[in-house]
Amino acid sequence: MSKEIQKTIDIRFNDQGLVPVIAQDKETKDVLMLAYADKQAVELTLASGYAHYYSRSRNKIWKKGEESGNLQEVHKIFIDCDEDTLMYQVSQIGGAACHIGYRSCFFRTIDGITIGERVFDPEKVYSHRKS
Amino acid sequence: MSKEIQKTIDIRFNDQGLVPVIAQDKETKDVLMLAYADKQAVELTLASGYAHYYSRSRNKIWKKGEESGNLQEVHKIFIDCDEDTLMYQVSQIGGAACHIGYRSCFFRTIDGITIGERVFDPEKVYSHRKS
Repeated sequence: MSKEIQKTIDIRFNDQGLVPVIAQDKETKDVLMLAYADKQAVELTLASGYAHYYSRSRNKIWKKGEESGNLQEVHKIFIDCDEDTLMYQVSQIGGAACHIGYRSCFFRTIDGITIGERVFDPEKVYSHRKS
Repeated sequence: MSKEIQKTIDIRFNDQGLVPVIAQDKETKDVLMLAYADKQAVELTLASGYAHYYSRSRNKIWKKGEESGNLQEVHKIFIDCDEDTLMYQVSQIGGAACHIGYRSCFFRTIDGITIGERVFDPEKVYSHRKS
């Protein structure tokens, strides 16, 4: 994704100024995660080519992978028919999107069966959080 | 998906009692749409094997395709690590999830380029709405 892309479709942000964003792996087409973005996070994503979101728990912009190194290189941003949901098509650096080490955050079925693949051990990646 | 599936993971619904649901095509892995479900919509999906959502504009449960015939047969329901987002893996009857006739609701990039494929003409499918 180049920095020259001009955003021409207005996003309908919700009451909190956020829009849900689906991240999909460009190659495997796996759905990796769902997060939220505010206007600035979308602009930072467009400008940098790396996925930015807005963390509702930390109340701040969040560059995906800034701590773990598992950045998401964004190839295309799609918008849905209602203009209130985005989809980032990404290359997932490090192979794992989920903060607990799975390739996808959707690693379990609703009846509790783990299907997804664990790529890293979060104890090692985020170990400095313990100090 | 059988009726015997027991839901064992509690869903974290938002303040409105809703959870975002991503629908993904089981075969192509295309992301078809994002909608919302309440507890009853999830239960109806589990019981019937067909995707049910909650329409925020109409304030009611909505069986996907009840009007157009484009039902979604649900094969698996995934839940994410935070337990606040679901993903239905579906077979999209009729080939189109989007109410304006595209295979996927994400048929455009954010810079306004149409990439998706149009499968039906909404004027014909929903023509009785005009009367």
